[in-house]
Amino acid sequence: MQDPPVVAVVGATGAAGGTLLRVLEDRIFPIGDFRAFASARGAGTLVRFRDHDVVVAEVDEAGLDGADIVFFAAGAATSRRFAPVVARRGGVAVDKSSAYRMDPEVPLVVPEVNAAALTGHQGIVANPNCVTIPLTVVLAPLHARYGLRHVTVATYQAASGGGRALAAELASQERDDAYGRPPRREVYPHVLHGNVVPGGWPMVGDDTEEESKVIAEVRRVLDLAALPIAVTTVRVPVAVGHSAAVWIEFDQPIAADDARQLLDDSPGVLVVDDPATQQYPTPRAVAGSDEVHVGRIRADVSRENALALFLSADNLRKGAATNAVQVAELLLERPL
Amino acid sequence: MQDPPVVAVVGATGAAGGTLLRVLEDRIFPIGDFRAFASARGAGTLVRFRDHDVVVAEVDEAGLDGADIVFFAAGAATSRRFAPVVARRGGVAVDKSSAYRMDPEVPLVVPEVNAAALTGHQGIVANPNCVTIPLTVVLAPLHARYGLRHVTVATYQAASGGGRALAAELASQERDDAYGRPPRREVYPHVLHGNVVPGGWPMVGDDTEEESKVIAEVRRVLDLAALPIAVTTVRVPVAVGHSAAVWIEFDQPIAADDARQLLDDSPGVLVVDDPATQQYPTPRAVAGSDEVHVGRIRADVSRENALALFLSADNLRKGAATNAVQVAELLLERPL
Repeated sequence: MQDPPVVAVVGATGAAGGTLLRVLEDRIFPIGDFRAFASARGAGTLVRFRDHDVVVAEVDEAGLDGADIVFFAAGAATSRRFAPVVARRGGVAVDKSSAYRMDPEVPLVVPEVNAAALTGHQGIVANPNCVTIPLTVVLAPLHARYGLRHVTVATYQAASGGGRALAAELASQERDDAYGRPPRREVYPHVLHGNVVPGGWPMVGDDTEEESKVIAEVRRVLDLAALPIAVTTVRVPVAVGHSAAVWIEFDQPIAADDARQLLDDSPGVLVVDDPATQQYPTPRAVAGSDEVHVGRIRADVSRENALALFLSADNLRKGAATNAVQVAELLLERPL
Repeated sequence: MQDPPVVAVVGATGAAGGTLLRVLEDRIFPIGDFRAFASARGAGTLVRFRDHDVVVAEVDEAGLDGADIVFFAAGAATSRRFAPVVARRGGVAVDKSSAYRMDPEVPLVVPEVNAAALTGHQGIVANPNCVTIPLTVVLAPLHARYGLRHVTVATYQAASGGGRALAAELASQERDDAYGRPPRREVYPHVLHGNVVPGGWPMVGDDTEEESKVIAEVRRVLDLAALPIAVTTVRVPVAVGHSAAVWIEFDQPIAADDARQLLDDSPGVLVVDDPATQQYPTPRAVAGSDEVHVGRIRADVSRENALALFLSADNLRKGAATNAVQVAELLLERPL
């Protein structure tokens, strides 16, 4: 790996890719040469990066030659095709797609939770999905101290998690409504504006694909293959910021105050928890943040050794780009 | 009671009261004389009812004289002051406020669930809150067949549940955003537009007042004083329609198909459940309906004898006005 490394972003014109550029800037990630790629459709676009206009090229094998760290923020098919190319040529593919998340040869990493899983990677590192990341950041320290027995999750997921087109459709529906026009719908099965949609993902049996991902990925990141998890994923009319109502059962008795203190001391977590003065996590407040906001921390008195809480995280930053850049930072710290 | 009865609405100028007028019209409720009341602030307003403009009077004892059925859709203080007046003068107060919900002398009624509780009422009948009503409509038939052991609920509650001022503030924030102005906020502790707010209610210990109401009222309506219930209440940027992600454990094994059939046969329930074709409950679809929409009905495989589902109901209609009018319909059918 060159120092500073040659860095590329595949999917630079998408919602996740755009945020990746901002996070690389914000975190002053060391970069020798920088390349931006997209599909044929996005090629030729200019993206702004560190005060320069960078021409986005169509991703191909030649363009990836010599790249040390390549962030994949496009679809799973693109990752499956080009991540092995990066690995074969000695670089590391940091993949935001779902392509390799369940591949036993590829580590699935949330830096605050399982950085050690990076050891021995073979040139591809996977990032969990945007619900799994904040969830594991909060569950991991609680598990270490009290032992997880069961997790129940209801999500409140932002439009941007469904991609730039859905975010744009929501914004356009808001304008339609303000101008007295019936809200138009093209990319999503329901009008999202003024609505709550417990679906819109492909189905995997009785679960949405999102639900099945969260269950499988949380288990893998926490290394708890049999952890019982119940999850219902729901899209809400929010631009940025995924939230979740969470109930957790433990092996050990747990006091809410102790849990609050433990989370307050945990990396990547900001406790926002004084409901009487209207302090609790909200997507509007967390947008732009690299931390997971956690609040409404209280005993779940309906069960033994149980806790309830509510969390919000910026799905484009900590739920995606920030996690990937943190993984790359670890790669620089601990070269193989 | 006169036939047809003298009917009055207290709080006729509010969000719940306005819907009550529409539901009385829609259900062709028999009415001899009709009177509309509000606080001093609302008095003098005209409300439209059955093609007439009705002048709203300030509520007082004299105005309630001779009224057979008086719907209370104002605050708890108004109900506490005037509902006993109605009862003393031989009428029945059908109260939407929280004033009498936990009064052991006053029945708390969801007609599909516990109509029998009306027997022996003493002139005041309470209606549960707008989350309790749809929840008990769904839980009651499941309990009768399989026996409830535990219920977990995450809500997605519409602005109109917080009153007309919050609904107006949300609409105004949507316009602000469409016109490129920062969204203004006056009546609610957070900007609700483009947000998800797990609070905003007064706190009762660790619970929001809404959570403590749901727990107490569900137990009372179902006559299950010790039922373990975990609930997190959350406000979402939706005009009308409360939704909830629900997980339920039973005494008996339960198959999702059997539960779906049972709910399909249950009064007040419409099963909307084919996620593969994007059929599931949403607040936009349920708005204007008197039924509780239920979908995403599936086994909760993380626990024994457990089910997950998602429901939506019009919080102003079935969650409030419709339930009250249904109670009044029962009163006409079975005079004391």
